[in-house]
Amino acid sequence: MEGDPISKLCTPAMVVDVDIVKRNAQRMVDRYQDLGVKLRPHMKTHKTLECGDIMTGGSRRCVVVSTLAEASFYADHGFDDILYAYPLPFDKLERCAALSERLSLFQVLLDHPQALELLSKRPLRAGRPWHVWLKLDCGNGRAGVLHSEPEALQLAQAIAKTEGVELTGVYAHCGNSYHCKGVEKIQAVAQETTTLTLQFMEKLRAAGINCKSSIGSTPSCSHPIKDMGQLSEVHPGNYVFYDVQQSLIGSCSMEDVAVRVLTRVIGHCPHRNQLLVDCGWAALSQDGAGRLPSGYAVIEGHPDLKLLSMTQEHGRVEPITGELDYSKYPLGSLLKLVPYHSCATAMMHSVYHVHSGGRLVGKWFPTRGW
Amino acid sequence: MEGDPISKLCTPAMVVDVDIVKRNAQRMVDRYQDLGVKLRPHMKTHKTLECGDIMTGGSRRCVVVSTLAEASFYADHGFDDILYAYPLPFDKLERCAALSERLSLFQVLLDHPQALELLSKRPLRAGRPWHVWLKLDCGNGRAGVLHSEPEALQLAQAIAKTEGVELTGVYAHCGNSYHCKGVEKIQAVAQETTTLTLQFMEKLRAAGINCKSSIGSTPSCSHPIKDMGQLSEVHPGNYVFYDVQQSLIGSCSMEDVAVRVLTRVIGHCPHRNQLLVDCGWAALSQDGAGRLPSGYAVIEGHPDLKLLSMTQEHGRVEPITGELDYSKYPLGSLLKLVPYHSCATAMMHSVYHVHSGGRLVGKWFPTRGW
Repeated sequence: MEGDPISKLCTPAMVVDVDIVKRNAQRMVDRYQDLGVKLRPHMKTHKTLECGDIMTGGSRRCVVVSTLAEASFYADHGFDDILYAYPLPFDKLERCAALSERLSLFQVLLDHPQALELLSKRPLRAGRPWHVWLKLDCGNGRAGVLHSEPEALQLAQAIAKTEGVELTGVYAHCGNSYHCKGVEKIQAVAQETTTLTLQFMEKLRAAGINCKSSIGSTPSCSHPIKDMGQLSEVHPGNYVFYDVQQSLIGSCSMEDVAVRVLTRVIGHCPHRNQLLVDCGWAALSQDGAGRLPSGYAVIEGHPDLKLLSMTQEHGRVEPITGELDYSKYPLGSLLKLVPYHSCATAMMHSVYHVHSGGRLVGKWFPTRGW
Repeated sequence: MEGDPISKLCTPAMVVDVDIVKRNAQRMVDRYQDLGVKLRPHMKTHKTLECGDIMTGGSRRCVVVSTLAEASFYADHGFDDILYAYPLPFDKLERCAALSERLSLFQVLLDHPQALELLSKRPLRAGRPWHVWLKLDCGNGRAGVLHSEPEALQLAQAIAKTEGVELTGVYAHCGNSYHCKGVEKIQAVAQETTTLTLQFMEKLRAAGINCKSSIGSTPSCSHPIKDMGQLSEVHPGNYVFYDVQQSLIGSCSMEDVAVRVLTRVIGHCPHRNQLLVDCGWAALSQDGAGRLPSGYAVIEGHPDLKLLSMTQEHGRVEPITGELDYSKYPLGSLLKLVPYHSCATAMMHSVYHVHSGGRLVGKWFPTRGW
């Protein structure tokens, strides 16, 4: 119930501190206003309208999504200028066309000539163009045409000259920043991605093509380098929640992490020197396995405890060293888990309980599916 | 659309072969009819009404659930004789009481005197008793009072003599069977759990207490030993879907696995000798990391391929050895992933696409939450 302390919630439950969310969002807005670069926040971490409102300052414009289900969900609720930043799926062309014909600005992404061919064979109604971003791989090693290959420029040129298709921009994801530790290393990746993207933009201009440029990842966008001021857009997403992983990378401090999974002690196991809690992987995800001295999560206020293992609905907690003092953890008492990866944890919940200063202020319902 | 081949589905998508589901369910029914033991199927793997119907032969009676959300969902749809097999949660007592007062038979489980105290302080209306199973730990090392401790018998006696509370049975989960490889080892765990449970039942009888007994886990219940015929009930769950993990344990063959995640090729990355597919951990879960030569899943019909890594919506596939022949995997082509752990994979989907012989016959919608 609104107004209740979060401790009234049945557990496990994911709670979101709306004040931290707003602060994280505002800092990112301020950062890119200062740099003169458009912020296109990514919705994939939370997938909710309310958090989309916070990240866009209520404009419901200029967002990026990871699934077509998200695109449809946001479009159905008045969002527009949506970039579906995923290699154009061959099985979803008609759904993409429908969104392109319905919204003021729906944008797709591709990294292969065959995808372009599909678009050219399905012209949009009323003379509308397909708005297409070229996905460039600047060292991330996932999707995208390699920046160093001649095919990259050829594909950009092909998009630009195909009838019914417009080259809107060049999009690079610097997910390789997730392997960094510390601001210096993050900024080295940001610099490399930016430099390679800008060099590619230069080649495009030399070929007579002008379009936008965008890079992203929460680590790089949390610590922008000067040259990022020459980009058109950035597209981070996780920053609105942050998590333990981001704090270890150096994107944020632990105080910036907006989400917790609340769990209760459901068992004392002195013969194993363990507690049982009611958070299993069904509530936390299995992300972060083997990454933290404290196990699958950080247990807030209890640096001496470790979330050792989980099954679907149970978690085993033990002290990092020494004997457990059970009097500190009576049955039914509450623990707060700071997730290793908030994107993965959020995916496990069909409702997020939102609070301000520990008092419930509402619920957010994410969309799911593809 | 019903009647369409599954290849028409947008990907990623979880598909369930209803014929295999029915066969798995029927075999378990037959097995325990032969043994004269009641089968109480666990709903936690699928959490759907339709699969609950198949597992109960349409009776909608005698099931076990892992969350109170499941209990409420099944109760709301005409299921009864529901056992909520989870250590009685201190924060959900009123919800348990409401179900106990509403259903013909709602059963809870506990492993601590404090939980019993809570029940005795909240008598049910109309003179109804709380139906309580005692959770016994027979070597699994998760929840339950240790079979070897005097507290176990004391707690059983306390339940039996508490007013308004009835000791319905003794419940042991042999999850330690998941560490087995092969029928012989599975049956050793089944034997140990059964023997310890029956010894405990003997102690109860000597103390003048008669109640039911139940053990479970898909491995042990797939290969029952003779002594299990002396139990009142068994409570396996995963068997209705099975998965790669169960086939490795020896619970089933790969032909018995009823679920797949369909995914499409969305990228060719010859510079990395990889394919990209549209299945990330958002569609498969991260379960099984590091367990299989083929990575996070078995790629059906392609024993030469490995699902190397995943991010939220992308999977990287590479050959186990040698060079990838891209002509075999055109963009848009379909691959079928056999999940390592179907419970974890099912949790990632809000709809299961059900087929018979590769033709869609319907959709199942699981419940979620706690």
